[in-house]
Amino acid sequence: MSVARMLTGDRPTGRLHLGHYVGSIANRVRLHRRYESFFIIADLHMLTTRNRREDIDQVSGNAREMVTDILAAGVDPDRAIFYLQSAIGEVGELNTLLQNLVTVPRLERVPSLKDMARDAGKEEMPYGLLGYPVLQAADILCVKGEVVPVGRDNAAHVEVTREIARRFNHLYGPVFPVPELIPADTPSLVGTDGAAKMSKSRGNTIALSDDAATVRRKVLGMYTDPNRVRADVPGTVEGNPVFAYHEVFNPDRDEVADLARRYRAGRVGDVEVTERLI
Amino acid sequence: MSVARMLTGDRPTGRLHLGHYVGSIANRVRLHRRYESFFIIADLHMLTTRNRREDIDQVSGNAREMVTDILAAGVDPDRAIFYLQSAIGEVGELNTLLQNLVTVPRLERVPSLKDMARDAGKEEMPYGLLGYPVLQAADILCVKGEVVPVGRDNAAHVEVTREIARRFNHLYGPVFPVPELIPADTPSLVGTDGAAKMSKSRGNTIALSDDAATVRRKVLGMYTDPNRVRADVPGTVEGNPVFAYHEVFNPDRDEVADLARRYRAGRVGDVEVTERLI
Repeated sequence: MSVARMLTGDRPTGRLHLGHYVGSIANRVRLHRRYESFFIIADLHMLTTRNRREDIDQVSGNAREMVTDILAAGVDPDRAIFYLQSAIGEVGELNTLLQNLVTVPRLERVPSLKDMARDAGKEEMPYGLLGYPVLQAADILCVKGEVVPVGRDNAAHVEVTREIARRFNHLYGPVFPVPELIPADTPSLVGTDGAAKMSKSRGNTIALSDDAATVRRKVLGMYTDPNRVRADVPGTVEGNPVFAYHEVFNPDRDEVADLARRYRAGRVGDVEVTERLI
Repeated sequence: MSVARMLTGDRPTGRLHLGHYVGSIANRVRLHRRYESFFIIADLHMLTTRNRREDIDQVSGNAREMVTDILAAGVDPDRAIFYLQSAIGEVGELNTLLQNLVTVPRLERVPSLKDMARDAGKEEMPYGLLGYPVLQAADILCVKGEVVPVGRDNAAHVEVTREIARRFNHLYGPVFPVPELIPADTPSLVGTDGAAKMSKSRGNTIALSDDAATVRRKVLGMYTDPNRVRADVPGTVEGNPVFAYHEVFNPDRDEVADLARRYRAGRVGDVEVTERLI
């Protein structure tokens, strides 16, 4: 039995952090041994929202760091093919062909694109950004990808790929597999400041490439329950970033339960709870 | 002094006829000796409105015939480079890059695209068709074209190329010439049936590749003044297709003036007037 082909990837916008790890990289580390795996470094997609000269100057360094981070997280380079999207001319060629198989109103119904335009400070929708899902279809179909791990936003994008693949096959014969979505349970990790999302622009990240001393410093500086002024005051576990990290990263479930019980009872200090993360 | 580079081209949708000759080919025959000339066979543009399998199957034959017609019309193959758009991968690559330099509302303001969608029977605007002018920008900038002969519709398209070239140069440095438009005086030729436009779908064309006997048959079968039942009845010259063809193709201006005078006076037969065209 042949092994199905998986495509996944990221825009090369900076070093990966624990939020990426929890949200997608850990999932890929699990999946990549089950499939023939392609990892795309989607610099053409980056250009749909960030195309200043400075952004482009950083692609090469960012791509190198991103691949290093993914390998460090546990992806076996013998079992995964990494490639830079813009280096494969056929991606642009296929993109140009597939653009005729989807309509403007269909793309305008993809929910996340308007948010992406707004977040990028664009007053009017760039033509290339409206075609973001078409370029993804080119990526996936270019390697005849059969499975695609998706998070929440991405599922609606890859649905466009499925429609385009069906339309292509209907017009020209059975050329492309219609890719299956693998929904990832992608819990989002709160930042070290307790903000809803870890993101570089907030400065609340722990990078995969941080050294031990930096990780230690960041973990010890994490927010906890802001109402708890002393160790003998009962604290709140819910929404407390330190306990959120215990949930995700501490494999000793008994210890986590014990810490939570003592924290609620005012019988353990914030420093001890935080130290146990390291 | 170096010679400026010109790009021009056509979609390979069928053999060329006298309408094409009068509208653009004659102009190119004149221009191509003044410039370094590139002639693109725009099959990717054809796909924006016609992308059924049957359309694509005809590209190869149509392209060959079209080039033959253009050469037969007087373009010197030693002074012109012909190429098939889809065979140059860089066109699709550049198209994918340039799409980020123009917005959806800007493209929606290009007047002819909605008409093209309607004429092609599309209920919703195909994404690729909205990007028709961007793909043209990729064609022109791909060869660093400096001059582009344009008819009426095309001027608005090439204006998009100029904006994209300026935007690219502003962001990344002076890479592309901003191409100049050469407005062609493109008289449109009435069909042999007197209909406003010569077009294959109306069956009122004279093809550049028609043999002498066919041309003779088509010319003798041309419509004239429908109210004129006999040669001694005064006829109308205005809107009379036979006289429209004399205007364009008969270099003997005195003869044309004489025929018109006698036609109006009822002193020449339709057959004689028509015979003089051959």
